[in-house]
Amino acid sequence: MNIGNNADMYDIAIIGGGPAGVSAALNAKILNKSFIWFSSRSTSKKVERAELVKNYPGLPDISGSQLAWALKNHAESMGIELREEVVTGVYDTDGKFTLLAGNKDYEAKTVILCLGVETSKPFEGEEEFLGRGISYCATCDGMLYKGKNIAVVCMDKSFEHEIEFLCGVAHTCAVFPLYNGYEIKAQNAQIMLKTPTKYTGDMRVRQVHFKDGKIDVDGVFILKSAISPATLVHGLEVKDGHIVVDRTCSTNIPGIFAAGDCTGRPYQYAKAVGEGNIAVHSAIEFLSKS
Amino acid sequence: MNIGNNADMYDIAIIGGGPAGVSAALNAKILNKSFIWFSSRSTSKKVERAELVKNYPGLPDISGSQLAWALKNHAESMGIELREEVVTGVYDTDGKFTLLAGNKDYEAKTVILCLGVETSKPFEGEEEFLGRGISYCATCDGMLYKGKNIAVVCMDKSFEHEIEFLCGVAHTCAVFPLYNGYEIKAQNAQIMLKTPTKYTGDMRVRQVHFKDGKIDVDGVFILKSAISPATLVHGLEVKDGHIVVDRTCSTNIPGIFAAGDCTGRPYQYAKAVGEGNIAVHSAIEFLSKS
Repeated sequence: MNIGNNADMYDIAIIGGGPAGVSAALNAKILNKSFIWFSSRSTSKKVERAELVKNYPGLPDISGSQLAWALKNHAESMGIELREEVVTGVYDTDGKFTLLAGNKDYEAKTVILCLGVETSKPFEGEEEFLGRGISYCATCDGMLYKGKNIAVVCMDKSFEHEIEFLCGVAHTCAVFPLYNGYEIKAQNAQIMLKTPTKYTGDMRVRQVHFKDGKIDVDGVFILKSAISPATLVHGLEVKDGHIVVDRTCSTNIPGIFAAGDCTGRPYQYAKAVGEGNIAVHSAIEFLSKS
Repeated sequence: MNIGNNADMYDIAIIGGGPAGVSAALNAKILNKSFIWFSSRSTSKKVERAELVKNYPGLPDISGSQLAWALKNHAESMGIELREEVVTGVYDTDGKFTLLAGNKDYEAKTVILCLGVETSKPFEGEEEFLGRGISYCATCDGMLYKGKNIAVVCMDKSFEHEIEFLCGVAHTCAVFPLYNGYEIKAQNAQIMLKTPTKYTGDMRVRQVHFKDGKIDVDGVFILKSAISPATLVHGLEVKDGHIVVDRTCSTNIPGIFAAGDCTGRPYQYAKAVGEGNIAVHSAIEFLSKS
């Protein structure tokens, strides 16, 4: 990892492509700020899968897929680009923030977290060994494991191309597909139909444990779109799984804001777009003072 | 005034027909609560007059009048009725709330204030003499001034029919139309093209003052759609003209919630619909505990 060199500096980085992220992006654009917008998917999976939405004001009886389209279309109609990448880390570096996504880093003066509700809690040892043999980013860290023995814990089918890349680099590759309908073509992939229970090691991760056994590894890749907020941003205040914010959507870290389901209930689209709007206004006020 | 007798009891009373009020009404309906919804107008004047709204997520480049229609249509499509009346007082009566609107009173277990941004500050003496010769409600209190000398201070053309009613009841009627294009037909109306500066009196209001003079009165009617929150609800905490709320949209009075522009900046439709949604969820949680 090469943090903080030669990156463009944005006023605002927005992480998340759900309703809160869309609302933040629209307002950042209208208010003429330089910004970059990341999401692991082009639309929110939660919105897309909603059968019928009756309480998004102005769009009565809309299906989730229609609402997802309407939000995506709104951003596209304003020429806003979504960068379809998972941000795997946000670092506070001398009054600015560095974001790692894919194998690149990006710099921003403020960050708006629109992470949704965390769907997978970290396993035991995951946070402990992150950066010490555990990685969330195949393209960033894959080459470090050339010829080594690795495990890949994968939460979503959309990451299968990364599994194949990792298997191509490593000597042995134990793959834990934690979703239905996997299709993994790499010849050295050893499919493990088990759920990891914990990661252990010494200075670095050494074992992946599951219910009736364990395997030895040199490294573990955990591929998921929803990284827990406290893992993504070191020092972020989180309570009961939700990012703690005040009425201005400010977190405990100056310059970092949060909006939508990740800040707590109600888990509602109207609440999410409202907070996305508020967060941008708060970020701009922060920028004007700094 | 006859407070608290023989009224229906609603779970929720919503005051205000702007985006926050619409959002609250949709959610109260979906969540199957009994509720009553008041607004001085069938749609929000602020929304209607917006030239172009670019940041209401899902409805790109919509005119204010289109957005106002979309919100109104959404509520109507769900069979939600708006009661087009100005609520002139909210009273805390033994763990329930009594609302005065027109010449009737209504009871509710919780109240959601979606009042918008107050556009007219009270004049000097207005709050002091409210209920002691000053009234916001022609139909409630008009008959008390039969054959008397009154002043009517009117903020909006939509109240002209109330001016005519009051002139018909009173002996003399000094009318201060504080808007353009007035058309007042009552024969005893004495049109005053002046702006009141203060109200004075003893135990009751006695004089209306303006820049270069004053008139003696037995009573004053102030007709406006935006009654200041602190005047509407005795004891409500207001700071810099905004109702103080926490992240759950709860005010300092248990059972009273607030949403939209009246709770502060940003004055944005997305923020308003978000808070309308939150306020209903908070009201329902309050109902479940009481």
